[in-house]
Amino acid sequence: MHIEIWSDVVCPWCYVGKRRLETALGRFEHADDVEVVYRSFELDPTAPRHGTELSTGVIARKYGRTEDEMRDMQQQLVDVAAGDGLDLRLFETVHTNTVDAHRLLHLALDTGGPALQRELKEALLAAYFHDARDVGDHAVLTEVATGAGLDHDRVVAVLDGDEYAGEVAADVAQARAFGATGVPFFVVDRRYAVSGAQPAEVFERLLAQAWAESHPVLEQVTATGEVCGPDGCAV
Amino acid sequence: MHIEIWSDVVCPWCYVGKRRLETALGRFEHADDVEVVYRSFELDPTAPRHGTELSTGVIARKYGRTEDEMRDMQQQLVDVAAGDGLDLRLFETVHTNTVDAHRLLHLALDTGGPALQRELKEALLAAYFHDARDVGDHAVLTEVATGAGLDHDRVVAVLDGDEYAGEVAADVAQARAFGATGVPFFVVDRRYAVSGAQPAEVFERLLAQAWAESHPVLEQVTATGEVCGPDGCAV
Repeated sequence: MHIEIWSDVVCPWCYVGKRRLETALGRFEHADDVEVVYRSFELDPTAPRHGTELSTGVIARKYGRTEDEMRDMQQQLVDVAAGDGLDLRLFETVHTNTVDAHRLLHLALDTGGPALQRELKEALLAAYFHDARDVGDHAVLTEVATGAGLDHDRVVAVLDGDEYAGEVAADVAQARAFGATGVPFFVVDRRYAVSGAQPAEVFERLLAQAWAESHPVLEQVTATGEVCGPDGCAV
Repeated sequence: MHIEIWSDVVCPWCYVGKRRLETALGRFEHADDVEVVYRSFELDPTAPRHGTELSTGVIARKYGRTEDEMRDMQQQLVDVAAGDGLDLRLFETVHTNTVDAHRLLHLALDTGGPALQRELKEALLAAYFHDARDVGDHAVLTEVATGAGLDHDRVVAVLDGDEYAGEVAADVAQARAFGATGVPFFVVDRRYAVSGAQPAEVFERLLAQAWAESHPVLEQVTATGEVCGPDGCAV
């Protein structure tokens, strides 16, 4: 079974949704046969390459709210995330660009498969939300990526060039084609879609349903026609 | 889309069914995306390695009929096959073992994929039913297999040993697991089964149905949950 998750590194609900899917997978008997791949989604492609401003102020302006109102909303999100075991330092995160983080996530998938990509995805989310680091900064990205197990020279080469930019753009286009306007956006076997950080129970039901669908009992379409068997050929 | 056909080289309905499926594929707009693989089925694993007796006599004894009665039944089959463009010399075929032919069909699949296997399958059926040759005989098998494009040295090596015997046995076991007691037995995407040389129209409907099933429209499972979008994160 194949799960694709469109997600951004700076998206708190993506982090929460990741934990809830992991909870569901922990309870799913066929979890070893489930492959999870992260797809790129950029919440703000226009964000600066280096984070110089806190996210709270930028989002407050977008919403047309005061920073105090914004912080109240963020606090609600922090409280929900705490219930999922996540300690988000949401007020300290910086507004930054994620295209390079996504390019490295593609490098990880390309060179180490879903297992390495998963390591990097978790490390990037933790770096941003837990350590409040600038995941647009190349020094930060290099440190996080090599820490997750990626090859140092390949990381530097990818960051210096524009490798995997096409893959990132293709992911974003595919999300749009699927009608996704926000993330996280989960797609199972290119057949079922779930939008948002749903409760673990929703993911559990989805996994069970998709598993049953992908392991059908063979269906005999019509009555048997003319066959040859051990005792000869019917005419 | 993936079609598997359990079939034996000495099975006239398999030859007829093959033609009818080919007719259906010829009318199917996505035929280029359909892969056809032949699986092994042995109608009579106890048949001698070399054909020394005509099939008619052997089958007549099995059925408990006279050879004349048997020939009447065979004539009916010959007449049907003629309607599908096949000229079967059914009265001249010999009772012979097909395990080595099946081992070569696995060699073809292994080394040249479904395209090479298809060439060999057609060549073996034609050798047996049209040219009335003994497809258990190693000299005949070598000639037919190399004529179909298989590597001469590999063919000889496989025939001299027992390579692919396990694959043949696994195919037969799988057919049994699917409940197939006769051939041809067609399985599409391990989801739909069709038994027997059905009319081309049945295969056409099956192809259309399986195609629709394997190219589903993405289904949104629940209402959207908590997401982050271009304008911020819902709480």
